Amino acid sequence: MSTNGTVQSTQIVLASRPDGEPTVDNFRVETVDLPQPGDGQVLLRVLYLSLDPYMRGRMSTAKSYADPVEIGDVMVGGTVAEVIESRHPNLSAGDHVLSYSGWRSHAVENGNHVRKLDASSAPLSTALGVLGMPGFTAYSGLLRIGQPQPGETVVVAAASGPVGSAVGQIAKIKGARAVGIAGGPEKCAHVRDELGFDAVVDHRSPTFVEDLKAAVPDGIDVYFENVGGAVASAVLPLLNTFARVPVCGLVAQYNTTEAPDGPDRLPGFFGSVLVKSLTIRGFIQQEFVPTMQDDFHRDVTQWIGEGKIAYKEDIVDGLESAPEAFMGLLAGRNFGKLVIRVA
Amino acid sequence: MSTNGTVQSTQIVLASRPDGEPTVDNFRVETVDLPQPGDGQVLLRVLYLSLDPYMRGRMSTAKSYADPVEIGDVMVGGTVAEVIESRHPNLSAGDHVLSYSGWRSHAVENGNHVRKLDASSAPLSTALGVLGMPGFTAYSGLLRIGQPQPGETVVVAAASGPVGSAVGQIAKIKGARAVGIAGGPEKCAHVRDELGFDAVVDHRSPTFVEDLKAAVPDGIDVYFENVGGAVASAVLPLLNTFARVPVCGLVAQYNTTEAPDGPDRLPGFFGSVLVKSLTIRGFIQQEFVPTMQDDFHRDVTQWIGEGKIAYKEDIVDGLESAPEAFMGLLAGRNFGKLVIRVA
Repeated sequence: MSTNGTVQSTQIVLASRPDGEPTVDNFRVETVDLPQPGDGQVLLRVLYLSLDPYMRGRMSTAKSYADPVEIGDVMVGGTVAEVIESRHPNLSAGDHVLSYSGWRSHAVENGNHVRKLDASSAPLSTALGVLGMPGFTAYSGLLRIGQPQPGETVVVAAASGPVGSAVGQIAKIKGARAVGIAGGPEKCAHVRDELGFDAVVDHRSPTFVEDLKAAVPDGIDVYFENVGGAVASAVLPLLNTFARVPVCGLVAQYNTTEAPDGPDRLPGFFGSVLVKSLTIRGFIQQEFVPTMQDDFHRDVTQWIGEGKIAYKEDIVDGLESAPEAFMGLLAGRNFGKLVIRVA
Repeated sequence: MSTNGTVQSTQIVLASRPDGEPTVDNFRVETVDLPQPGDGQVLLRVLYLSLDPYMRGRMSTAKSYADPVEIGDVMVGGTVAEVIESRHPNLSAGDHVLSYSGWRSHAVENGNHVRKLDASSAPLSTALGVLGMPGFTAYSGLLRIGQPQPGETVVVAAASGPVGSAVGQIAKIKGARAVGIAGGPEKCAHVRDELGFDAVVDHRSPTFVEDLKAAVPDGIDVYFENVGGAVASAVLPLLNTFARVPVCGLVAQYNTTEAPDGPDRLPGFFGSVLVKSLTIRGFIQQEFVPTMQDDFHRDVTQWIGEGKIAYKEDIVDGLESAPEAFMGLLAGRNFGKLVIRVA
């Protein structure tokens, strides 16, 4: 708070658009005075900021499901915050809320656009991970599109990440066999030993393609696609007839600026779609919020309580660390759900 | 019938596998003696043989949804036949049946594997077209996967063919706008004037890409994929968010032997699947027979009676004409449902 009683917010804005991989020069730190909250608004102090791969898309002007962040605007993102001052009837100072305040330390928000959190039922940061958007992405995409049946094989990449870890564990709860793909021995051990996947394959291994094949002796019935790239290329030939492929992310190619060299695999891919009666379905988790969010909160809260779902967080201190941490996320350098501890 | 009372069948067998486009050398005509029908069997005289693009797949050993025809075996295919002699309790000499007897003049079949036809309700040849497998492919794929809603835009290629013509007309019955793609002015005029599509685009026109764009001012909600190739390349960028793409055929690439030159469009395609929440779903009509075939027969018979569905047949005389006619089918040279009049 400044000397005259005005609250100041430190915020990170988009300084320029990346060409390929983002660099620190694409971001700029600013400090601005916040207005007083008006009727129905709340003043928030941000505690945690979620960093997620989709943010790479918002840095570009390429046509997508959401508008890009404009140059000079604050980077978007999900946040857990504490209410400092409330002019909303249902919220009080001291309340904890989930908001979409972006990369900043403080914010004024419409009280109807935040969701109150119960800090006693689960750690607050989980509202950005296993009980938040990544967990819901896994739950909705796997159950609505993937529809794993008992005995089927479900494969997911970035299996130590917040989406992949939930996908595999929910698949197992539904009676399917969960096979994870992760990068490096540490992440692979976590997926197998802490998350309880039936098998895990290291995509950095020189024998990755053969290892994956050996890990799915009955083929693949559901491939939850959240990375794209070389991993997807190894998975697609192993899909079974009637396999389902929910597509929620392609982080391996978010920094790609043009189509790679040939041959052109698209015709062959459509050939596989035809002869194997495949289902390929892109989705953004918002689509399923109206019909599935209540079930999600009930089920996943219960599964965590029963010890059926474990989760791992990667908490980095300080808003100013966000650009570097985000670049690491896109490069697969973090381990667990990446969250910035802002306050 | 030979002099000793044995029935002889003229049949066309697969002489060799094609490398790219089939040639007449891939086929061979034979005459064989048929056995006497045993208990439960019927002796059939084939009246009509259906020629369909899927047969190209059966000529190759490439992994597909069905086993290939072996070298020396009779080419497979749907047939309408007359019962000459019956040892099945529900069938009598003179009955007309739908069978899967292949490229031959006579056959002995298990009576449980044929379906009796009512020659008074529709021309017998329609059991191979609008009221047969192609019509059912259109009906099941469009309604179960495409799910066209009133006011949406449905695009289908090979729109003058047996599948495409039914797709567009059923789309219109369901309140959608039907846009057809066909090759040449004669077929385009038929699609627009006889089949009543809302718009038609000639894929042979040098301005095809622009013409297609102009024909779908609100984008494309359902693309019924039955050709692949250059047509698909023009369609995919025009798909709307939540568009559905039933994939039932890729005739433009059936003769392709290797992946075309780059750039590799597959990563970009997955990007579109993601940002537009697309559904791509391959299917073989058999999948929907148990749940939809009765509805199909009832609905389409009614729609034909009401003049809501027109159909065009391209009937070629003589079993020996089948190889040449089939090669023309793959090259898009025929016009309407291709049927060989065998008897």
